[in-house]
Amino acid sequence: MELHLIIEGRRGLAEQVYRQISQAIQSGRLAHGQQLPPSRLLAEQLGISRKPVEEAYRRLGYERLVLGQAGRGSFVNAPAAQAGKPPSPALLAANAALAAWREYDNPLRKVVDEARARYDFIGGSPAAQHFPEDDWRRAVNAALRAERVHRSRYADSAGLPELRRTIASHAAYSRGVAGDPSRVIVTNGAQQALDLLARVLLEPGACVAVEDPCYPAARQLFRSHRARVAPVPVDAEGIVVERIPEDARLVYVTPAHQFPLGMAMSEARKRQLLDHAARSGAVIIEDDYDSEFRYEGRPADSLQGMDRDGVVVFVGTLSKVLMPELRIGYMVAPEALAEPLAIARNLSDWHGPTLIQHAAARFMEDGSLLRHIRKLGAVYAARREALLAGFAGPLAPWFETVPASAGFHITALARRELDMPQLIRLARRMDVGLYSLEKFYAGAAAQQGLVMGYGAIDTLDIPPALERVRAVLQQMDS
Amino acid sequence: MELHLIIEGRRGLAEQVYRQISQAIQSGRLAHGQQLPPSRLLAEQLGISRKPVEEAYRRLGYERLVLGQAGRGSFVNAPAAQAGKPPSPALLAANAALAAWREYDNPLRKVVDEARARYDFIGGSPAAQHFPEDDWRRAVNAALRAERVHRSRYADSAGLPELRRTIASHAAYSRGVAGDPSRVIVTNGAQQALDLLARVLLEPGACVAVEDPCYPAARQLFRSHRARVAPVPVDAEGIVVERIPEDARLVYVTPAHQFPLGMAMSEARKRQLLDHAARSGAVIIEDDYDSEFRYEGRPADSLQGMDRDGVVVFVGTLSKVLMPELRIGYMVAPEALAEPLAIARNLSDWHGPTLIQHAAARFMEDGSLLRHIRKLGAVYAARREALLAGFAGPLAPWFETVPASAGFHITALARRELDMPQLIRLARRMDVGLYSLEKFYAGAAAQQGLVMGYGAIDTLDIPPALERVRAVLQQMDS
Repeated sequence: MELHLIIEGRRGLAEQVYRQISQAIQSGRLAHGQQLPPSRLLAEQLGISRKPVEEAYRRLGYERLVLGQAGRGSFVNAPAAQAGKPPSPALLAANAALAAWREYDNPLRKVVDEARARYDFIGGSPAAQHFPEDDWRRAVNAALRAERVHRSRYADSAGLPELRRTIASHAAYSRGVAGDPSRVIVTNGAQQALDLLARVLLEPGACVAVEDPCYPAARQLFRSHRARVAPVPVDAEGIVVERIPEDARLVYVTPAHQFPLGMAMSEARKRQLLDHAARSGAVIIEDDYDSEFRYEGRPADSLQGMDRDGVVVFVGTLSKVLMPELRIGYMVAPEALAEPLAIARNLSDWHGPTLIQHAAARFMEDGSLLRHIRKLGAVYAARREALLAGFAGPLAPWFETVPASAGFHITALARRELDMPQLIRLARRMDVGLYSLEKFYAGAAAQQGLVMGYGAIDTLDIPPALERVRAVLQQMDS
Repeated sequence: MELHLIIEGRRGLAEQVYRQISQAIQSGRLAHGQQLPPSRLLAEQLGISRKPVEEAYRRLGYERLVLGQAGRGSFVNAPAAQAGKPPSPALLAANAALAAWREYDNPLRKVVDEARARYDFIGGSPAAQHFPEDDWRRAVNAALRAERVHRSRYADSAGLPELRRTIASHAAYSRGVAGDPSRVIVTNGAQQALDLLARVLLEPGACVAVEDPCYPAARQLFRSHRARVAPVPVDAEGIVVERIPEDARLVYVTPAHQFPLGMAMSEARKRQLLDHAARSGAVIIEDDYDSEFRYEGRPADSLQGMDRDGVVVFVGTLSKVLMPELRIGYMVAPEALAEPLAIARNLSDWHGPTLIQHAAARFMEDGSLLRHIRKLGAVYAARREALLAGFAGPLAPWFETVPASAGFHITALARRELDMPQLIRLARRMDVGLYSLEKFYAGAAAQQGLVMGYGAIDTLDIPPALERVRAVLQQMDS
């Protein structure tokens, strides 16, 4: 067998032997079932005493990287060979819980692994090539300098004061959200805001009303908190308030830009929803994930800004306006909720990395974020025009778009029954990535359609991409 | 009244008016109750049309920053004046849940706000002045460059592959933890590892055994998951296994360096605990928060490395070896748990900021972390010597230390009944920060003592600080 070990100096001999053999096994250089030299022999070869070799072997044994067979010697037990072994008896007791968790899986979780098409209409993925690299690097380096001052202490679980201040201003300015910084809770993405609200406000078995269709990661999250999730239909004005169960403790809505359909909630519907919440004792979660990008008309008032009863929690994020990998989300909560939410954040994970919080605060404070939103908004406006033109033109026989004036996706509903899986499959063969609307529905009333994100596709690529889609549709018709 | 508004250009007039008035109110320049000029008058003064002023006023009204009184005009309603208003009727329905959350509060949460003494023995706060600024800045800048490549996509919820690899190596090397990278889940600090385990493995009402004393943030977390928390006594060898309830689904222990007492779990006790878990179906959480710093003897094997039944989850963190603000924790889980834990992480918050993950991977990969641990280990060794000398010398009449050979705190038990609150108060007057052991106990059998962290105090400061403590104790005796 091949076993080249290099011993340097006279210190940490057992470590040195252990580490090199372990790495050889992990990397596959030592194959499963290979025999190791007896410790005495190896010690002689290396010119060291037998004790450190024995210690290394024992540690390898503890790690099950090497198995001893009485009277025969020590044999490599490669991790790949361990992988197939059945779960331990002890874990079998947890099997029901583990199976439940597999059921809670978020259908969007694995998007990271998916290869993208040349023309890809993935949603929720902001334009990477327009990311303001220089401004962001400057903000991070300023944050590195700021951090020198007070290191090695846990920070405020509700978020760094400077970030809470800039977030309060941003939400007030861009969305008319009312609330001083003491009511802002910084979260690790909007997803954690939903999680903390579920923790604090839901008893097991409590009812949560969600729009149908809706963001599946939210629906699955509420399920994982053992809530009863009630999908409520939406019409052209938004969630159908009469269909919200009376006992719903939380109502999760996307008023500025319904996810994924795209329309805004009407003023009348907003008032009706606020009245419902105030009367029934429900708390409304207003998820405003991307409405900083706006193309037509005056920004509608946020539900939270209209709320007179302190029943709305506004949830926002930098994932869409800046980038998802940043993991900066936030909520502006009614005063009575702010402290319990900070406690829940503390117990969940204390707080997010301060470097990122410092950098985000700096990036917002110095105007970089608003500049970026304005710049990217112009880019998106052009892409949106191209997309709407395509659906009003070549694709009009098959699809009609849902009116939407914010964000960076539009939804196109099928005018008549289509074999959507086939459409997506054939388009993909033409290197066009399409995404079905259906998976966002929980209830039976799923509409056929496409969710067309325009964060990841250039303006000039949109007409040829839609031309390919038209060709596929014609082929399917014939 | 003072109201200086500056209008620039002819665009976004309503925004400009709104923003400046809003800021004036938020900053207190416009006081509660002040009257705003009528919209017509203000429009005239500014030389703009009345419409944008009216729109700005309406938005201020929505935000309740301005309240209209019919026939009298518009008045400033400052946030400070809103703060005192009672919680909304809707939220009253949630009051029981909110009250429960106040009960779950972590007694360590507010440490961020506490001023430190000149001589401060706070625990868990690594030596800030030895933080490797240059290495860390290099790692962050390398991460910024790496991030240019693939932006604007969510990442793997279990953590970046390169970080999971370096963590698997680090845990194997430093603690003999067995597990390939597929079983590593990166978390937002060790706290989130505990949270994810509680989510995945605990039904409401399930029993969790914790050591008594124990890390209060862990105890409170399990409570907040509606678990029945059973504090189990520890003796000189570690947790008293016979006292673990048979129905405990989770057993949370700190074998390498009992928190906060400091002793290591004996080999025999470890085997007994593993046997218990394999027999009863419990999962063991091994929290190894700081044992990379080790001063005497050979590192004891981790429980996880000894586990033959796949019942141990190893939880580690960079909070103590590097810095808590980084929020990098991890677990190495049995194979059957890895996927459910990744799903739970995804639903909680998707993943942590990739910049920090990239930087941490780089920092570990290039040897900076091990170098830092070695360097800081030498610093801590000297501080520990000074501390042990003080307790063996001047403080010996009052305290005896618990033998501990890892981490960066030791615990000193009172030899006889002492008025601990008075000791802490009087020491504080002498500018010495002492921290009582008692608050870490859940049960009735709290021992009197001090938890003496040496991360935040220099070696040369230790003798004079302990001299002050001795003086206080003598004064209390007389």
